[in-house]
Amino acid sequence: MSDQTMPFQLTILGTSSALPTSNRYPTAQVLNVLGRFFLIDCGEGTQTQMRKFKIGFSKIDHIFITHLHGDHIFGLIGLISTMILLGRDKDLHIYSYSELQKYISAQLSFIYPGEIPFKIAYHPLNYKREQLIYEDKKVSVYSFPLTHRVPTCGFRFEEKSGLPNLIPEKIKEYNIPIRERQRIKEGGDFLTNEGFVIPHSELTTHRFKSRSFAFCSDTRFDESYIESVRNVDLLYHEATFAHDNQELAHSTFHSTGKDAATIALKAQVGKLLIGHFSARYKDNLPILKEAQEIFPETKAISEGDVIQVEKKKS
Amino acid sequence: MSDQTMPFQLTILGTSSALPTSNRYPTAQVLNVLGRFFLIDCGEGTQTQMRKFKIGFSKIDHIFITHLHGDHIFGLIGLISTMILLGRDKDLHIYSYSELQKYISAQLSFIYPGEIPFKIAYHPLNYKREQLIYEDKKVSVYSFPLTHRVPTCGFRFEEKSGLPNLIPEKIKEYNIPIRERQRIKEGGDFLTNEGFVIPHSELTTHRFKSRSFAFCSDTRFDESYIESVRNVDLLYHEATFAHDNQELAHSTFHSTGKDAATIALKAQVGKLLIGHFSARYKDNLPILKEAQEIFPETKAISEGDVIQVEKKKS
Repeated sequence: MSDQTMPFQLTILGTSSALPTSNRYPTAQVLNVLGRFFLIDCGEGTQTQMRKFKIGFSKIDHIFITHLHGDHIFGLIGLISTMILLGRDKDLHIYSYSELQKYISAQLSFIYPGEIPFKIAYHPLNYKREQLIYEDKKVSVYSFPLTHRVPTCGFRFEEKSGLPNLIPEKIKEYNIPIRERQRIKEGGDFLTNEGFVIPHSELTTHRFKSRSFAFCSDTRFDESYIESVRNVDLLYHEATFAHDNQELAHSTFHSTGKDAATIALKAQVGKLLIGHFSARYKDNLPILKEAQEIFPETKAISEGDVIQVEKKKS
Repeated sequence: MSDQTMPFQLTILGTSSALPTSNRYPTAQVLNVLGRFFLIDCGEGTQTQMRKFKIGFSKIDHIFITHLHGDHIFGLIGLISTMILLGRDKDLHIYSYSELQKYISAQLSFIYPGEIPFKIAYHPLNYKREQLIYEDKKVSVYSFPLTHRVPTCGFRFEEKSGLPNLIPEKIKEYNIPIRERQRIKEGGDFLTNEGFVIPHSELTTHRFKSRSFAFCSDTRFDESYIESVRNVDLLYHEATFAHDNQELAHSTFHSTGKDAATIALKAQVGKLLIGHFSARYKDNLPILKEAQEIFPETKAISEGDVIQVEKKKS
């Protein structure tokens, strides 16, 4: 059941690692939670991919950067420049390692000697422990430390479960006054003028389970972040190498397909996505196969994939 | 007649202007003159396009940057990073406005705190007059000022005509000694022991005409640079707008299709290429048509186009 009125939907913009390939883009993904669009990492060419997959630049108010390696940030200056050219005026929030501010500011002051027409709010991440970094009525976002060569965080996006809706026909049938309605949504029953108790469950729609997505890249296999991704519906985990390159993965602080699947299994996630494939793999099937042997619900991502997490009744 | 042993060949990597589109890339072209590869401008995604069109990163030793607007330089940091990752050790030469050095150095020092494994030699351009900026045995490259909002140069690449080759069969037939051969290549005749004069033209292959290419982007229509592109075999000239947007072109220091063709006509070039199309044009046919009305030998470029300038006997 796909319900576009309550999307929880991930669009893949790039799947490659540091070296460019002819048909893949470096890391970038956009998560749409109920109409809020969160950009995660921003490799070179992200803005072109956004155009291709019809994600409007003005929808992006929050950008989450895992770490400051080129293949995760080289698209930022182009995207910000385009926002300037398009006359953006609302704030842009960037969550990243603190040094990113200097890096972007230096480039902007060079290209736009005057003030740019909107504010960039930089939110430095915590590399010691998990932290709530964004929250509104519908969504919470957490960062948590990963294990890479430079300070790196993963991110977890959680939909808030919210209250059920009142059923319009029932409101009419029992003539429920406005002042009573919030109390019923929050779990109360309704007492009619005649003294009958109408139970909460008859008056409201089902509650839906909160949906969640976690993003882990780049990182070496490490059990330290398992609790931060436990039970998520959807986990993206890098799988730069196949396991016959396990030593190379370890020494470069990357993961193999087997590593990613082991994290997914131990954290009991719903579905695993793998990506950030090394340019040496013309075909990522070996990485996918070794992951599926451990965690069958694994998918190797491609540019343009759209992965929807469906609503489930609680 | 296409002779891949003596290429003079342009590969188009990007054709769009500042705003990204879903299927075009910002400005970048590679000119191959007799096996020397010259990269001209380097918009975001240039390295991906080089992979796609099979131009090896190690072949690029000289990069020519017309001006410091994002759509002409945002791909530089990614390309240089990839060269670092691939272990490059030979010098890289960049010809541009002097400020580019600060811009690139700031980014590199941020991403690679140590020394990078090769030297980048920055060559500042002259914005007052035409200048020879590169020369070797086979090629000369000139810069010349254009008329844009920021300091901007065009470039002209000229193959040196070189000497003709001796015909091996004739060397044998007349038993021409080694000490005589250079003199004959340079235009001399040969005097046999019997006192016969064998003319130069019988002993040597034909001379070929020098081939040339000029690159003009970004610029407003201006007759000042016509002499710098006079008689080139191939001219690339930006044509951001159609002529019904003539005022917009003028105020933003860009050209129309008609402007580009007028320059080509006045400079009596062999063939005109137009590009740098504004994102507003889904279809560049109106720009192409207005150019062809003035200069029929006009082509609108697309990503992946390869344009060969054939050798011609002089």
